[in-house]
Amino acid sequence: MPMASNFLRGNNTFLTSILLLTFSQATAAATTRHFKWEVEYIFWSPDCLEGVVMGINGHFPGPTIRAKAGDTIVVELHNKLHTEGVVIHWHGIRQLGTPWADGTASISQCAINPGDHFVYRFKVDKPGTYFYHGHLGMQRSAGLYGSLIVDVADGQREPFRYDGEFSLLLSDWWHQGVHEQEVGLSSSPFRWIGEAQSVLINGRGQYNCSLAAQFSNSSSSSTGQCEFTGREQCAPEILTVEPNKTYRLRIASSTSLQSLSLAIKNHAMVVVEADGNYVQPFSVDDMDIYSGDSYSVLFKTDQDPTMNYYISASVRGRKPNTTQALTILNYKPNSASDPPKLSPPVAPAWNDYAHSKAFTSKIFARVGSPAPPTSFDRRIVMLNTQNNIDGAYIKWAINNVSLILPPTPYLGAIKYKLKNVFDAANPPDDYDREYDVMNPPVNRNTTLGSGVYNIELGSTVDIILQNANALAANVSEIHPWHLHGHDFWVLGYGEGKFNEKEHERSLNFKNPPLRNTAVIFPYGWTALRFVADNPGVWAFHCHIEPHLHMGMGVVFALGVHRVGNIPREALACGVTAKMPMSNVTATNRG
Amino acid sequence: MPMASNFLRGNNTFLTSILLLTFSQATAAATTRHFKWEVEYIFWSPDCLEGVVMGINGHFPGPTIRAKAGDTIVVELHNKLHTEGVVIHWHGIRQLGTPWADGTASISQCAINPGDHFVYRFKVDKPGTYFYHGHLGMQRSAGLYGSLIVDVADGQREPFRYDGEFSLLLSDWWHQGVHEQEVGLSSSPFRWIGEAQSVLINGRGQYNCSLAAQFSNSSSSSTGQCEFTGREQCAPEILTVEPNKTYRLRIASSTSLQSLSLAIKNHAMVVVEADGNYVQPFSVDDMDIYSGDSYSVLFKTDQDPTMNYYISASVRGRKPNTTQALTILNYKPNSASDPPKLSPPVAPAWNDYAHSKAFTSKIFARVGSPAPPTSFDRRIVMLNTQNNIDGAYIKWAINNVSLILPPTPYLGAIKYKLKNVFDAANPPDDYDREYDVMNPPVNRNTTLGSGVYNIELGSTVDIILQNANALAANVSEIHPWHLHGHDFWVLGYGEGKFNEKEHERSLNFKNPPLRNTAVIFPYGWTALRFVADNPGVWAFHCHIEPHLHMGMGVVFALGVHRVGNIPREALACGVTAKMPMSNVTATNRG
Repeated sequence: MPMASNFLRGNNTFLTSILLLTFSQATAAATTRHFKWEVEYIFWSPDCLEGVVMGINGHFPGPTIRAKAGDTIVVELHNKLHTEGVVIHWHGIRQLGTPWADGTASISQCAINPGDHFVYRFKVDKPGTYFYHGHLGMQRSAGLYGSLIVDVADGQREPFRYDGEFSLLLSDWWHQGVHEQEVGLSSSPFRWIGEAQSVLINGRGQYNCSLAAQFSNSSSSSTGQCEFTGREQCAPEILTVEPNKTYRLRIASSTSLQSLSLAIKNHAMVVVEADGNYVQPFSVDDMDIYSGDSYSVLFKTDQDPTMNYYISASVRGRKPNTTQALTILNYKPNSASDPPKLSPPVAPAWNDYAHSKAFTSKIFARVGSPAPPTSFDRRIVMLNTQNNIDGAYIKWAINNVSLILPPTPYLGAIKYKLKNVFDAANPPDDYDREYDVMNPPVNRNTTLGSGVYNIELGSTVDIILQNANALAANVSEIHPWHLHGHDFWVLGYGEGKFNEKEHERSLNFKNPPLRNTAVIFPYGWTALRFVADNPGVWAFHCHIEPHLHMGMGVVFALGVHRVGNIPREALACGVTAKMPMSNVTATNRG
Repeated sequence: MPMASNFLRGNNTFLTSILLLTFSQATAAATTRHFKWEVEYIFWSPDCLEGVVMGINGHFPGPTIRAKAGDTIVVELHNKLHTEGVVIHWHGIRQLGTPWADGTASISQCAINPGDHFVYRFKVDKPGTYFYHGHLGMQRSAGLYGSLIVDVADGQREPFRYDGEFSLLLSDWWHQGVHEQEVGLSSSPFRWIGEAQSVLINGRGQYNCSLAAQFSNSSSSSTGQCEFTGREQCAPEILTVEPNKTYRLRIASSTSLQSLSLAIKNHAMVVVEADGNYVQPFSVDDMDIYSGDSYSVLFKTDQDPTMNYYISASVRGRKPNTTQALTILNYKPNSASDPPKLSPPVAPAWNDYAHSKAFTSKIFARVGSPAPPTSFDRRIVMLNTQNNIDGAYIKWAINNVSLILPPTPYLGAIKYKLKNVFDAANPPDDYDREYDVMNPPVNRNTTLGSGVYNIELGSTVDIILQNANALAANVSEIHPWHLHGHDFWVLGYGEGKFNEKEHERSLNFKNPPLRNTAVIFPYGWTALRFVADNPGVWAFHCHIEPHLHMGMGVVFALGVHRVGNIPREALACGVTAKMPMSNVTATNRG
């Protein structure tokens, strides 16, 4: 890693200049921030080709929410779609005390009907880099997402210093509409969505031109140089910096499918935050970002200031069929349109998992972070398999159950003890350990299920995510798993089949990072621990949108009797819409 | 009209052989017919190009319902769409006593949520040719439709005889998806959907080949001969007949936009039914069919039986950019794949409105049909205009109100006296008669509105539909208006501006046809009368899907206090979902 080495050599005060956060009481009162959003389809050209995108207030991506820790966010969401429901999930926000505002259709609330509205009201209790996105069908893939940045409360300081900051929300984009994608995924024969046409940085990508055409082999490439005035919807958002400063780069990935590698040419990055939690700073030249991840990195503008530099986001973990997304790090006073003299960063080979694991293994909780409980009350081992249904349709399953969501949301159904809303049987806590994770399943068929894991409130729960071979031989995929309502500690990763005897001692109980998303590598396992202390019903699922759509998720229910008054608007569907109002406390009446 | 003359000359006993219906009591008890339907998007090739179509039970078009007058139809409709609501309207069925089963989203019921279901239960009281279709957003255009045929009750006879019958459901098809169409219609600048790519006959059309290639000018045409095994989704449904028989052809049009002309080469057609009402039989060579219309015609297979013949459906009323749809009348024992020796019927010029009006003017109620009341209690004159909103968006308006539907359905809102659900102001009963209908509007802007016409139960209501010039000079379009919950008498059509003094005497009070759909011709007017005797809330609107989407409709509310128990499932949205259950009678509780 010559760049990082160079960088660190020349800037040996950089890491040490990162300041420790002094935890102190906020000196200013938290405020309530009101937003009024309209969701509708709009024509947009995310990658210079026009298509239909799900926009908010006429714009794609949606507006950035910026708040301070302790603030209350109020989003009055108006559904201006003609036929579709909508919800918005606030990814990484734990919704302490407001589980009905988690924005998961069929889980935390009824989808907002066309023409109707819903008020999301929740507290952002923890500074960090977050984002929000649709959580019904594949509306995230349709473009329903945006950034959510929480600064430290007034009077607080981040445990590091920087002179400026940028936020990059990464996503991927298909030219085929999501409705057609959904039909393909649900069809027999199965039709896979394929790789993305473009990777987008803040909703901007280039499909039919290149920001780095001068470096492409003109004899083999048909992609010419992009020419932008800067006003085009697909014109890159330029990061303009001053020399010899430190910048914070906030990065979040809302991709539907693609795992990405981010790099800034010739500039090392020091990772300081992951998923809204501080991590022990470490330096890298490139970093892997899976769907659902968020990070903050610091970088110094200490390179030759007479040049601009490429920033790249490249596909990893799947044989790439999607061009590297680029934007420009523009040193002042150079013109932003000066083409960088150095070629874009070269991403590691797509299947260089050793490189990915090396990155992941560097992430530790910042000194002073809370450590996990030393023991668990319950350990759930979750085998991730690809399966058939009826020998035809293709699904993903956890312990041989492929999740299918009921029309009545779990939260209301459990709180009001409604019957026959979802499968009464609980999914299993383990799989047959004789299962061969290195080969395609012998019994390919799985079952659909809507049962929940009932978790004891306050208990410590371990999750062992166990990857396996897919339906085809010699294929095992990456799955980034995201937990709602809680952060978890990532205790460790390993190869092959998790085995208590062998692997327990390898787990990290000392300084595991707190996160809300963690990956399982092909043929590997990942061990997580969380304290189930937030009453509600919470999704835990692969954050790859088509995988969730194909059933790759589970539902945790805990302490629902402790959940306060669910707004009536969140119950206006399915069986909850028909229950006698006497079941609902008076304050819920609309 | 040489064909009709020949036909009638050679078959002078044909018309006279039509039998009068003997009205007698049904001798067998009516039955209840149960259907279980799942609505979902499917891949389908309606015109030989694959796209995504809204299907029922995995098929497009939806299954044909066949029942007998007096039967009860029960359709348990399961919404298997991932993000969209759904409803189904039973076009032409008056829903006597069951207004909540009319299947109009925002009017008669809440849309059925994804994953949920709704039970439509209604009586088909009158024999005739009907169809059903989606009535939310532009789901009809997406392919959600099918035939609904009601035979006479056991022991009853039709007032004409035939040896066999066929049913042709006509529609039009776009390669652009309806979601994108909707965005264009709601955008500024406005994007029109354009003419259909194909006209479909029973869901089957040919976009990239022709059933009549041998008659096309090969130098100018790139369309080759269709080659079908018969199992293709776009293979035409062949009408196989025996010589010297009489057949009934049921025809209904579910087109989104196109007005059609139907003809059978060399075979005259005797029109005997329109919109589920018998008409005085009359013979034509070709007939205009507007969206929302249904007809029965009789034809004799009295032509050279050694040949097959083309049946054609051609675009009328708009400059055609869509190839004539064809299918084959196949005389036994000829092979169905024998190409007809005679060219397809040639449709009248698209703008030969005199031809259209000549057809319309031949339609009279069958002798013995109920005559309209001789006077009216209220006459509503409805000026149909194309307008702007905020100088930008393009809408259609009635008396300067462009209909926008509320998220809470009117039926429940009015029955339970809920406030602030829709505009309290009633739309006007007339327009400024000084308005120049022959020129573009001077004041182009209109307003959006959701107010209803409150109609006195039992009153006789006249509607004068007044057409006008659109926004562009020298343009006035055809609009087929469809009334829910009632049939109306079509008292007459005229040119220019309706004027009581001048035109009252020209109206037909003697034998006007009873229908549920009637057209207004460009720059013309159409006079309708109906007895408002069916308690409920009923849409009355232009049946062109994009026109309704652009606001071209009104809502009638009558006798809602007399409406029985609305199923709770029809109220599970908007304000009705939140109302205290004490408002709802006990039997409604789910």
